[in-house]
Amino acid sequence: MAITVVGSVAYDSIETPAGRRERCLGGAATYFSLAASFFTDVRVIAVVGEDFGPEQEAVFNARKIDTRGIERAAGKSFFWEGSYLDNLNEAKTHQTDLNVFATFAPKIPEAYRDSEFLFLANIDPVLQRRVREQMPDVKLVAGDTMNYWIKDHRPALHAMLKGLDILLINETETKMLAGNNNLVQAARAVLELGPRTLVVKHGEYGATAFFSNRSFGQGNQSAGHPFRAPALPLEEVVDPTGAGDSFAGGFFGYLASQPQLTPAALRRAMFYGSVLGSFAVERFGTERLQELTRKEIDDRFIVFRELTHLD
Amino acid sequence: MAITVVGSVAYDSIETPAGRRERCLGGAATYFSLAASFFTDVRVIAVVGEDFGPEQEAVFNARKIDTRGIERAAGKSFFWEGSYLDNLNEAKTHQTDLNVFATFAPKIPEAYRDSEFLFLANIDPVLQRRVREQMPDVKLVAGDTMNYWIKDHRPALHAMLKGLDILLINETETKMLAGNNNLVQAARAVLELGPRTLVVKHGEYGATAFFSNRSFGQGNQSAGHPFRAPALPLEEVVDPTGAGDSFAGGFFGYLASQPQLTPAALRRAMFYGSVLGSFAVERFGTERLQELTRKEIDDRFIVFRELTHLD
Repeated sequence: MAITVVGSVAYDSIETPAGRRERCLGGAATYFSLAASFFTDVRVIAVVGEDFGPEQEAVFNARKIDTRGIERAAGKSFFWEGSYLDNLNEAKTHQTDLNVFATFAPKIPEAYRDSEFLFLANIDPVLQRRVREQMPDVKLVAGDTMNYWIKDHRPALHAMLKGLDILLINETETKMLAGNNNLVQAARAVLELGPRTLVVKHGEYGATAFFSNRSFGQGNQSAGHPFRAPALPLEEVVDPTGAGDSFAGGFFGYLASQPQLTPAALRRAMFYGSVLGSFAVERFGTERLQELTRKEIDDRFIVFRELTHLD
Repeated sequence: MAITVVGSVAYDSIETPAGRRERCLGGAATYFSLAASFFTDVRVIAVVGEDFGPEQEAVFNARKIDTRGIERAAGKSFFWEGSYLDNLNEAKTHQTDLNVFATFAPKIPEAYRDSEFLFLANIDPVLQRRVREQMPDVKLVAGDTMNYWIKDHRPALHAMLKGLDILLINETETKMLAGNNNLVQAARAVLELGPRTLVVKHGEYGATAFFSNRSFGQGNQSAGHPFRAPALPLEEVVDPTGAGDSFAGGFFGYLASQPQLTPAALRRAMFYGSVLGSFAVERFGTERLQELTRKEIDDRFIVFRELTHLD
């Protein structure tokens, strides 16, 4: 089933211990849709500037991602510059230029309206909610957010959360959103804000899914218990940018490819999320996702199983 | 098969967000032997002072732990005072009195000499090595160490490491020991120092076992890949003291209870280690381990499996 994703398509200048790249193609919607495209049809809603050309367009086309919802506006695309020189787990932001994103008003192409899955990548929760309301009939809605919206845009964020089935955020954001430093208690508080399933990303330690009793991920057998997917211990992390968005793409893409939303499907989706995240960081920007194959994904899924399973 | 463990039996004064306890029974050998006693016979080598009385002795007796190797010396037992008020993941040490431990010279009772498993808990590597050399015929030797010995006692530590089959240390210690901030590279460097298996403890994120190709934990199928056991996301951590030693006791105790050292046994041992660690932190000091039952352990093992397994 098709996924519509709304979020940023951008340029990133990135410095890590492995080197530096200027203005690579980036943005949450870019990483998400590349990762999800290995599992299902993906349709993107975003805005770009006049600096977005055929070369960038080709990256989406190569993965058969529908770009009819990427609006071209006068001006420059969203630009982010950051580094991970001291700490691969946390980006230091040097510059953020919203550019054409500052006045972004998402429009949903008619051809996208039959999408059964909707992903609201990290943008202003007011816009996320607006897109959500224009697609009332989707089967499953997931979304992301970040510390900026949690700190200063609570009312809009809470309104958006009520429309989500699944929220994917990192551990720091979970604790900040709940105002509670214990992960289990924080997760419970977040689940009371709307989403039935909360996926907490722990970076190099993987991710944990928490379930309300209205979540399809909540099996009978494991009532009340979360589910943990590992991350792959990696020899070298070249560039952590986009790891979380790639996790989200692998996770949601896999779910959208399944005939039924079951606890077992959710568990496998957590593993596929981790698999896509592990590939994303192996090269700069989207380089690794662009050349990835479904066979490599499935081989690594087996490695993840061996990494965690007793037999 | 029986385990002999050498290490500290001590008194701890502990403050955590959940409260404060004065002079509870503690020490690495205490936590280790309580945890391991649920799986096999355990024999302790340690030294205590005149303040170690029938009440403390009874804690070991209740779990049928052999205390003939606990030497009584004139003076006071090892004492540690610490708190976890700011950070449950890292103790702040307020006071360490070695007392009778300052002149500890481990003696191995004749009755211990047929032990097939040996655990060298975190003490001076010179003493660890001396015990190791007095028990040349053991089937498997595991050990622990800490930042203090890594920083200032390298030659003695490296000599000790050559006598270990399995080293269990935390992630910070692994990186410090290897002088490398990448976990995978650091683990490989540590495995070159002697141990065939390295178990890296990640606190609330569980533990990862790394294998050299001479490790029994290294199955054919998963050649070159590590194994990750999760930790249980806990609603409340009352007191983290002894979690790592309880992990080691559950891990090594389970291995000693197995007819054969196989990759599957090592994987289950990692889970049992995490299970025992998860119980230890639920109450102050050794309180939880003292009242634990094997049934509770096996029930939680099932929870750990559900927490991580796809089906």
